[in-house]
Amino acid sequence: MAKPKKQPRPKAITPKGFRDYFGSEVTRRQEMLAQIARIYHLYGFDALETSAVETVEALGKFLPDVDRPNEGVFAWEEDGDWLALRYDMTAPLARVAAQYRQDLPSPYRRYTMGPVWRNEKPGPGRFRQFYQCDADTVGSASMAADAEICAMLADVLEAVGIARGDYIVRVNNRKVLNGVMEVAGLGAPEQEAERGIVLRAIDKLDRLGKDGVRALLGEGRKDESGDFTKGAGLSDDQADVVIGFVHARRETGAETLARLSELVGPSDVGRQGVDELGQIAELLEAQGYGPDRIVIDPSVVRGLGYYTGPVYEAELTFEILDEKGRPRQFGSVAGGGRYDDLVKRFTGQEVPATGVSIGVDRLLAALTAKGRFEGTEDGPVVVTVMDRARLADYQSMVAQLRAAGIRAELYLGNPKNFGNQLKYADKRAAPIAVIQGEDEAARGVVQIKDLKLGARLAAELSHEEWKDQPAQVEIPLERLVDEIRTRLG
Amino acid sequence: MAKPKKQPRPKAITPKGFRDYFGSEVTRRQEMLAQIARIYHLYGFDALETSAVETVEALGKFLPDVDRPNEGVFAWEEDGDWLALRYDMTAPLARVAAQYRQDLPSPYRRYTMGPVWRNEKPGPGRFRQFYQCDADTVGSASMAADAEICAMLADVLEAVGIARGDYIVRVNNRKVLNGVMEVAGLGAPEQEAERGIVLRAIDKLDRLGKDGVRALLGEGRKDESGDFTKGAGLSDDQADVVIGFVHARRETGAETLARLSELVGPSDVGRQGVDELGQIAELLEAQGYGPDRIVIDPSVVRGLGYYTGPVYEAELTFEILDEKGRPRQFGSVAGGGRYDDLVKRFTGQEVPATGVSIGVDRLLAALTAKGRFEGTEDGPVVVTVMDRARLADYQSMVAQLRAAGIRAELYLGNPKNFGNQLKYADKRAAPIAVIQGEDEAARGVVQIKDLKLGARLAAELSHEEWKDQPAQVEIPLERLVDEIRTRLG
Repeated sequence: MAKPKKQPRPKAITPKGFRDYFGSEVTRRQEMLAQIARIYHLYGFDALETSAVETVEALGKFLPDVDRPNEGVFAWEEDGDWLALRYDMTAPLARVAAQYRQDLPSPYRRYTMGPVWRNEKPGPGRFRQFYQCDADTVGSASMAADAEICAMLADVLEAVGIARGDYIVRVNNRKVLNGVMEVAGLGAPEQEAERGIVLRAIDKLDRLGKDGVRALLGEGRKDESGDFTKGAGLSDDQADVVIGFVHARRETGAETLARLSELVGPSDVGRQGVDELGQIAELLEAQGYGPDRIVIDPSVVRGLGYYTGPVYEAELTFEILDEKGRPRQFGSVAGGGRYDDLVKRFTGQEVPATGVSIGVDRLLAALTAKGRFEGTEDGPVVVTVMDRARLADYQSMVAQLRAAGIRAELYLGNPKNFGNQLKYADKRAAPIAVIQGEDEAARGVVQIKDLKLGARLAAELSHEEWKDQPAQVEIPLERLVDEIRTRLG
Repeated sequence: MAKPKKQPRPKAITPKGFRDYFGSEVTRRQEMLAQIARIYHLYGFDALETSAVETVEALGKFLPDVDRPNEGVFAWEEDGDWLALRYDMTAPLARVAAQYRQDLPSPYRRYTMGPVWRNEKPGPGRFRQFYQCDADTVGSASMAADAEICAMLADVLEAVGIARGDYIVRVNNRKVLNGVMEVAGLGAPEQEAERGIVLRAIDKLDRLGKDGVRALLGEGRKDESGDFTKGAGLSDDQADVVIGFVHARRETGAETLARLSELVGPSDVGRQGVDELGQIAELLEAQGYGPDRIVIDPSVVRGLGYYTGPVYEAELTFEILDEKGRPRQFGSVAGGGRYDDLVKRFTGQEVPATGVSIGVDRLLAALTAKGRFEGTEDGPVVVTVMDRARLADYQSMVAQLRAAGIRAELYLGNPKNFGNQLKYADKRAAPIAVIQGEDEAARGVVQIKDLKLGARLAAELSHEEWKDQPAQVEIPLERLVDEIRTRLG
């Protein structure tokens, strides 16, 4: 009889573009998200957790970013229905706002945090699953809703550990930009494509600089690799108007607003935009958020096509070193704005909405860059096993430590080679190892090996001094918990 | 020119078998998971968060439960690879343990919590996405690893609010059962199918009772709907041996172990199983976990085919009313055991592992049944808008409350109809509404409407008494924060 063919072993790998998170990578993110949730909750926002899976129909087939129309979602067919993993938190919110419109309070403030998935080509630091953390208000046309989210964003950044002065929330209004485009002669319905190019050009100001943006407003721009991006085809005069808008920021908010008023001139939509910015400024002032935290800045436009009014962005202003060692500003960690058409897809009714999305990984990277997680986290105290027959005694020591709230574990590998146990304790970043051989057990004592102190002494002292092993002490067993608690501080 | 065909509106619905979670449904689960994580961490377990998406190859195509071989996963093809959503946390752990085996400490204690997805037919209370919360130790053959997880499970239940006496952790060992099957003449390799039927029959003892199990051990059983389940085909004598095992629990652990020793007689595997149970009992005693918390109970077998040694289960022993109003025990909320073959799929090397999975939704339901979430959570204080022109003043009140740590919000809807604002406050479960009209503003006062007190008074007092509105008071604006803080307690 022929032997059954052996199945090849499966490969133990994460799918391309996905990754795993270990230990403090998980817990630090959790702690940060808990701080953010605390502020969102304080502001009256309610938690929402939608299913990760949506119908493709409800989700819309593609990302709303007109700049990248071909990037998609993970989708599959199930009993004739197409299902997909959510690619952001806004599309599911629109679905929820339509589905539960009879039951939800209106306006509805909600926050949500969780993974989203994008079927994009993965790259360095660019994954197909990542966290988003959003807060939106659905059903309010009031500028107070936008102002509140800007204030909340500032509070969130301080709550997670970004000092005042290290961030700035910048606010603008798409209507002002639309007014400026009218003034520049780009207001006709058939000029939507040109307006889109202008929008995305301004959005790249940080990266391309004034000349790069100017090229994109005109004929187009060839990048370093030689690729050519078609421009909006504006005349020099038209481009001057747009560039004038981008640089309309003045010393104070009032002066900026006055300058914007001049720029939009007679444009109705432009004047409405300036008025909305004025309301936001007034509301923020009433709440005590000065220009050290939130400013009106016409250079902020946000790339997404669906924004219809105020747009806002949180930028971290401290410098970090880039991959080539050059200092640069950390940059944007959150952004959002007002969008009025998403719910309409489902119900036909226009529902005003405004909201912000925090880039969770970016913000975590910023906290790391600011040294918020200096040093490695201590591992558990490791109780070693000298005498296999006395496992229950060792386990009892571990239980005492845990009962006292001290993170501790018993060495659970093969205890034969004691060196391996100490190597294990090292790998676990254990601050202390507990050792008790036959002799110590008979005398009712244990050895406390202070691995953290030992490492410090080894680094600071000569070999001779170090040999005395002051980092290892013998204590009575009944002092185990007290001694370790003292050493852990 | 023909009009472009209008796209039909998408339906605003969650896909079949999926659901959304609102407000306290999200936050209560988060709080419970945080408590569980705290205990896991104390025990030395490290957090792990794997990607939600795995290759089908790494995951294995189907659920490991041999009872339900046709239930599957959500899978799709992507650039020639088949990807799938994880259906549990154990398969990804096996992949991680193989993929990072050079870097992870060994033994590796890890915990993880998050959603899993199952492509099963949805039913009442049975969803296609749900939370799991697991802790496993990979790389330890020691019974101390199993004993520790049982102890941790007891601690977890108490940490989330299940009182001692309201739960019991029950421990058994598959090797004992295998020994008993040898004694019953079911030990031959070609009798694997019969052994599987016996296993699943015992697992259903709670639901089917002794007679039902006995029928499944023999020819088979017809259920209430008339469906027939084929039995193991055991003779009466064989069935007696199995049933004897299931009821081998005695007053004390030592007596139960003695009884099991008799039952497995000369079977090597059986004696090894009894010895392992003895070790677990000794270790638990050394840690101070008595039979009020953890017991040896031969009726626990756990349905999954992959367990190879100790199996354990946490059961809640208090009664609740079932859907027909009859009292019944709440039942199992967590279970697990030792499995040694999962990592071998990838590496060819057998790696011993043991772990537990907590049914997050079940445990939450239990806490709800125990009245842990009595009463509805208070909503935010709602500051109403009497005078649209003075939005900034109202917003400033909200900001003061928030700065004092009091959850508060400004009414952001259309302020025209004041009744709607109070309806909104009701819907938000606001404890207090703040009101300031033109007249109050001129006098520097605000009205504090204590909605919670008002509701209580309305329920307790006559209409006459209630009319005086003692729940509404006028206070100076500068006392806003203090007054509300006092009223909120």
